[in-house]
Amino acid sequence: MFLKKEPSKQDIIEAHERIKNYIHRTPILTSSSINSLFGCNLFFKCENFQKVGAFKIRGASNSVFSLSEDEIQNGVATHSSGNHAAALALSAKIRNIPAYIVMPKTATRTKISAVESYGGKIIYCEPNLKSREETLKNIINETNAVFVHSYDNYSVIAGQATCAKEIYEELNNKVKLDFIIAPVGGGGLLSGTCLSTIYFSPNTKVIGAEPSGADDAFRSLRDNFIHPSINPSTICDGLLTQLSDKTFSIIKKNVYKILRARDDSIIYCMKLIWERMKIIVEPSSAITLAVIFENKEEFVNKNIALILTGGNVDLEKLPWKN
Amino acid sequence: MFLKKEPSKQDIIEAHERIKNYIHRTPILTSSSINSLFGCNLFFKCENFQKVGAFKIRGASNSVFSLSEDEIQNGVATHSSGNHAAALALSAKIRNIPAYIVMPKTATRTKISAVESYGGKIIYCEPNLKSREETLKNIINETNAVFVHSYDNYSVIAGQATCAKEIYEELNNKVKLDFIIAPVGGGGLLSGTCLSTIYFSPNTKVIGAEPSGADDAFRSLRDNFIHPSINPSTICDGLLTQLSDKTFSIIKKNVYKILRARDDSIIYCMKLIWERMKIIVEPSSAITLAVIFENKEEFVNKNIALILTGGNVDLEKLPWKN
Repeated sequence: MFLKKEPSKQDIIEAHERIKNYIHRTPILTSSSINSLFGCNLFFKCENFQKVGAFKIRGASNSVFSLSEDEIQNGVATHSSGNHAAALALSAKIRNIPAYIVMPKTATRTKISAVESYGGKIIYCEPNLKSREETLKNIINETNAVFVHSYDNYSVIAGQATCAKEIYEELNNKVKLDFIIAPVGGGGLLSGTCLSTIYFSPNTKVIGAEPSGADDAFRSLRDNFIHPSINPSTICDGLLTQLSDKTFSIIKKNVYKILRARDDSIIYCMKLIWERMKIIVEPSSAITLAVIFENKEEFVNKNIALILTGGNVDLEKLPWKN
Repeated sequence: MFLKKEPSKQDIIEAHERIKNYIHRTPILTSSSINSLFGCNLFFKCENFQKVGAFKIRGASNSVFSLSEDEIQNGVATHSSGNHAAALALSAKIRNIPAYIVMPKTATRTKISAVESYGGKIIYCEPNLKSREETLKNIINETNAVFVHSYDNYSVIAGQATCAKEIYEELNNKVKLDFIIAPVGGGGLLSGTCLSTIYFSPNTKVIGAEPSGADDAFRSLRDNFIHPSINPSTICDGLLTQLSDKTFSIIKKNVYKILRARDDSIIYCMKLIWERMKIIVEPSSAITLAVIFENKEEFVNKNIALILTGGNVDLEKLPWKN
């Protein structure tokens, strides 16, 4: 069954054991030229190389493989138009159960293809919250599938926490990490990163990176209640959602701070990573470098781990002129 | 001094020792999705992650570090508008000597910047062979710098050979490599790959990959003399040059065959590598996959190493619509 409370150290260790055969152990890359430009030592955890091209497979596979045969016999369901949808479809495929994915009928062809390629069953809805929730409710009533929320789920959070755990396993013997920076949308990765940091590297400070045009998490922490994400405006299509009760509770206790970056900085940093590191990352990944770019003084000479969350971009719609 | 004859096994071992602190040991990546699409097992040697973004640093650094203090006191010189220029400039910078780089005045800003960023001294010439050779001759007369040809030089060839050597060191205990595929322009990498294969993996067959619109090496092997490269027409800007005496002699004795690919296949394979592997490679790298794409039957179920030679592309001029 899913975890009922905030994941413990043991829960995260078990999650990692559970999923390790289904995920890649992604590399941590460095770039001497970006280090020179920014005046600090950066360690890039490359979840763009992860299965389905994003860290989301960690939480999805941990949730799917946490359920018993009985619990999962009717499959899983979610609403998502992003990487979680593909990740849940792949996890279900590995377990040989159906995955019902509710997607807005406006979703791009690329995203639909990704879910289809992993065997997900797509149910289209209107592109609004009400239709999405009703469509999901209907399909769950029909099929008895288990709902796997993309972040408001402790088993998903424990899965996402394994990313920072790998970083600490690989780096803690070599370098004292001053900071770890993870993007924040719904907060699944950031809350998991907070937990792994407490358990495995308590002297490292956790920073959330959020687009200036979608800074509901920043405002939520400042005002101590969850601000909804209303009309977010950013290139980071993975960071449009708002915090949930579970993620907000973990983040507000444990995060050092949330830093914001503008889209122009995000695009600059995305292009810099492509050019200097020769790897493809999506805007929602590049924001981790962009918050350093906008706050350079704070990070001079520091050792900083950045989670590059994914590499799923439409190569025919790049945010710079071609 | 430079090697006077075809590099021996010991010459390549010594080259590798000589340069290993100045180059990256680049990773070999695999992609289960590309393997499925092509029906074979591919091992991608990622020289796009190499210093200066291309394998050329191997030959350039081996040549620069093969020279004595006396020999090299006046610096090195070459004509090149591509990766060799940047590689020679960086090698010279490490050795703290000047590098004189003759470049056509029509060279792109990106290429000029790369050479400048490594401290190379650029001398502009007209964009034709006569001006290039005269300008180089003049600068060498003036400075007494040592000419380092980008491929017609046995020390450069021995340096390029270290790339295949690394592949065999890493893979030979794990898998029987049926083929290794390297692009061919002037033939420095392909001739080095031939030599390392004889010495370190004699049962592997070496294939050269050449653009259909610049297939002078294919014709040279067929006709047993060096065809000049006249009006080559291809997107592979790294593969426009013709074989030299030294490279032709090694290649004709040792290569299994040269396969050609059209630009449309090269662009398709380049995009596929970007999308599936999340890495940036230039067209001259993607040609190694493109020759498999155009000759699938020959490679079914085979184990094949591909050298992805570089990742220097202008992100604002991609060969697909944006």
